[in-house]
Amino acid sequence: MITTIGFDADDTLWQNEAFFRLSQERFVTLLADYADPDHLMERLTEAEMRNLGHYGFGIKGFVLSMIETALDVTENRVAGSVVRELIDAGQDMLQHPIHLLEGAADAVKALAATHTLILITKGDLLDQERKLAQSGLGEYFDGVDIVSDKTPQTYQNAFSRPGMTPSQSVMVGNSLRSDILPALKAGAHAVHVPHDLTWSYERADTPGNSERFHQITSLADLPELIATL
Amino acid sequence: MITTIGFDADDTLWQNEAFFRLSQERFVTLLADYADPDHLMERLTEAEMRNLGHYGFGIKGFVLSMIETALDVTENRVAGSVVRELIDAGQDMLQHPIHLLEGAADAVKALAATHTLILITKGDLLDQERKLAQSGLGEYFDGVDIVSDKTPQTYQNAFSRPGMTPSQSVMVGNSLRSDILPALKAGAHAVHVPHDLTWSYERADTPGNSERFHQITSLADLPELIATL
Repeated sequence: MITTIGFDADDTLWQNEAFFRLSQERFVTLLADYADPDHLMERLTEAEMRNLGHYGFGIKGFVLSMIETALDVTENRVAGSVVRELIDAGQDMLQHPIHLLEGAADAVKALAATHTLILITKGDLLDQERKLAQSGLGEYFDGVDIVSDKTPQTYQNAFSRPGMTPSQSVMVGNSLRSDILPALKAGAHAVHVPHDLTWSYERADTPGNSERFHQITSLADLPELIATL
Repeated sequence: MITTIGFDADDTLWQNEAFFRLSQERFVTLLADYADPDHLMERLTEAEMRNLGHYGFGIKGFVLSMIETALDVTENRVAGSVVRELIDAGQDMLQHPIHLLEGAADAVKALAATHTLILITKGDLLDQERKLAQSGLGEYFDGVDIVSDKTPQTYQNAFSRPGMTPSQSVMVGNSLRSDILPALKAGAHAVHVPHDLTWSYERADTPGNSERFHQITSLADLPELIATL
């Protein structure tokens, strides 16, 4: 009997990776004179991974990694106007309107009537709060955990609030690495809702045979699945 | 009878503003050919305030504002090597060792034996977690709230956990604007511990006549004060 449902936010409830891709395209176009797109993307991903331990997840760190990569590939000769465009790209990302994914609003509203809902998301603190506010879904969540990383301990904590246990909780998200595997490890159920666009960092192998692992193609199918658990 | 003590972190438990000042000095030196120090600092503060609604508080947004200001004052002609130094300054800040303030560790350890302690801090999520871990004080806190801003609602929430009420709680911090005034508004007690270096944003008038407002010069005096409340 499931009492609690954890929802990932980016690319589970609303579009996110698509906005990163747009900025990456801008980045690649701006630096086209210095390196080809594949090389630029490789260097950018390297910078993001190198900086993750300092910057954490989110748009601000991404912009700083784009600027650093622009300096790297141009040997510091990048034009100031290009740096400014990268800053502008980040500002645009921090203000982009919310695009809810198909079925997300209905699923959240329906399940809020019968279950305790917790939003569990990583990224920039203020940006995640802004997106939740603009989504119009804030009132349906009983708790919001904006975390620096998603580990088994994250889900252990999130699903051990008064009256909850991991075994009676389910985590719903698009990232095998961040949403599914650590939630299963914490003893919770997990529902994978794949998204067309997934950041390479978030990919992982599908978990082996686990009765607590489930997969659906759209959040529209979530209430029906939850009813069977 | 006080049951709960909220602690601010930056410039209350450990040095913070000093590291921002060092980076600002680097910024002013790097751009000395373009503008005088006062003008540079004025422009930087304007950029920080303009961007606060997008970036929130913390080092990553500060670095982005430094880069933006460097572009502004040079009309995009800033050298790439200067932009790189600003990024490096941010990376240094994100790795600086923790300098606990005088009396902080003893006060936290002593009060943890008799009270529930909550850390309430704003800034970059991962950076604040890192500093708490490195401070060695993490185990003494019963809760950690890393928040995007400090409003009366922040303290209302923090001090309304099970078994707590704002009227039996006290907030301890160096910022009149962020720690003291909103905590008093939420109905809590507040202890101001001024720090020599305070960011202009955090300044405010001392609250008027309030029995719940207190001031001490060092955290070493905190246990004695709490005992009288």
